[in-house]
Amino acid sequence: MLNRLYLCSENHDQYADLLAKANLPNVILTTHIEEANLVLADPPAFAHQLEHAHQLAWLQSTFAGCDALLANPKRDYQLTNVRGIFGPLMSEYVFGQLLSVTRHLRQYQAQQVERLWSPISYSSLQGMHMVVLGTGSIGAHVAATAKHFGMTVTGVSRSGTPTAPFDDVVSNADLRTALSSADVIVSTLPSTPQTKHLLNADSLSHCHQALLFNVGRGPVLEEQGLLSAIEKQHIRHAFLDVFATEPLGNDHPYWSHPATSVTPHISAISVPEQVVMLFKENYLRWVNGEHLQYVVDFEAGY
Amino acid sequence: MLNRLYLCSENHDQYADLLAKANLPNVILTTHIEEANLVLADPPAFAHQLEHAHQLAWLQSTFAGCDALLANPKRDYQLTNVRGIFGPLMSEYVFGQLLSVTRHLRQYQAQQVERLWSPISYSSLQGMHMVVLGTGSIGAHVAATAKHFGMTVTGVSRSGTPTAPFDDVVSNADLRTALSSADVIVSTLPSTPQTKHLLNADSLSHCHQALLFNVGRGPVLEEQGLLSAIEKQHIRHAFLDVFATEPLGNDHPYWSHPATSVTPHISAISVPEQVVMLFKENYLRWVNGEHLQYVVDFEAGY
Repeated sequence: MLNRLYLCSENHDQYADLLAKANLPNVILTTHIEEANLVLADPPAFAHQLEHAHQLAWLQSTFAGCDALLANPKRDYQLTNVRGIFGPLMSEYVFGQLLSVTRHLRQYQAQQVERLWSPISYSSLQGMHMVVLGTGSIGAHVAATAKHFGMTVTGVSRSGTPTAPFDDVVSNADLRTALSSADVIVSTLPSTPQTKHLLNADSLSHCHQALLFNVGRGPVLEEQGLLSAIEKQHIRHAFLDVFATEPLGNDHPYWSHPATSVTPHISAISVPEQVVMLFKENYLRWVNGEHLQYVVDFEAGY
Repeated sequence: MLNRLYLCSENHDQYADLLAKANLPNVILTTHIEEANLVLADPPAFAHQLEHAHQLAWLQSTFAGCDALLANPKRDYQLTNVRGIFGPLMSEYVFGQLLSVTRHLRQYQAQQVERLWSPISYSSLQGMHMVVLGTGSIGAHVAATAKHFGMTVTGVSRSGTPTAPFDDVVSNADLRTALSSADVIVSTLPSTPQTKHLLNADSLSHCHQALLFNVGRGPVLEEQGLLSAIEKQHIRHAFLDVFATEPLGNDHPYWSHPATSVTPHISAISVPEQVVMLFKENYLRWVNGEHLQYVVDFEAGY
């Protein structure tokens, strides 16, 4: 059977080129979504076309987060996402930002301008406590990096099931207790009805001068709750890469707040080369009638 | 036998307090260097008193680098330094600086001021090649961090003896070849006659737009050679924490050069708590007549 693949991405040309080089058997690219049985797509770019995908059997997302697709009630297809690629990129972002603060790199830039030789005392990451929300492949990788730097790491997941490399994992019911001992908090959670506003004025009030990262999805963090938690010194600084509305509105208080660092959803950008490698593996499973990897559960939302 | 310990450090009071709490047997602190058989000292602060240490049998340095002491011909004592503590701190410094550049954190700070939402493409550390000069405990730790981030790592040492976690180790004779394939170069070398100006205009001319870190000792890097290598684009940016003369002179070109980042010798600051733990272990060996740990070889210079 000939498969008809529809491609929808901000990096369309690069993907088309990489797919041509991948020499996949029994597939042609189509520009007609109505006749495509397969789709490779960036979820936000493709979401509005989902209703026209009448022949769709399998959609491979180029992103980890598929919330843009899950907002649509259509569920009569297999949805797979990208896993195992983003963890290392997220770790780079989190630890680049974190070490810039703990090792005072911005102050040293300012001191250099003043030709000022003045050591600033610092605390090593060793012995600090990190709490990671989400124990999937991204959260686990961030945790592994934290362990490499000598931190202790608690994971927070729905089930609280122990999993490597976390020192311990607690369920959402114990979130407040976990946050109370955190030096650093990293949310890698997807956007689902269960995760919405999990970090809010109440839960954040248990923090003590913690550094907070949101690299998962914006709706997990209640924005007014964060601003309140910063004002009350529960949160010392927030590194925000994802937001309820993206791009972040021009008048949003995050832009000018001294305790928030804003980045434009770049903590883990899909690398088309890696996505195509993963798609190829899954496609060969598809043509052989095997189970696909990285299947998204429509109920759970990830 | 009662040991008489002389203490000489910028953090004198903190060390005195920690030593009191350590409850070491058969030792008293003395303020008379002439009668001390043991010394715990910051090498630069103590160096000029070495000639008065007539009873000195063992000196525990609070630093890794003992070049300030080795400049003195006196060698009729055991010298031990600090190892295993600085590797994690050096990794924090190197990867904080490195990721700030590769992940464009400074540009995002500037964009935030402008309320500009504009993703910048980046390369992951995965697959990049690091060359680490020095394969001792510090170099090995930096290499382990690089491996965690998916880099390949070549070590450069006098002997070229293979050692974990380096992918390969070459001898100084192959330094130029190693540098030619480096994305990132990290010198952790001590200051010895053999390492002086190992990185110079000639050796650096083999680099291709590399990022260079000097976290070992200043004299390893020939300063005019670096400036020339930057001008010729062999070196893209240099992160300099150590210098031939410290503090760095007020009129030094590094302060205002756009391709040099200057920090005031803070990549690994001794933490007195950790140094005292290490001193205590060594002291108990001393009173039991056992071999000391971390003995510095006067000939090799480290």
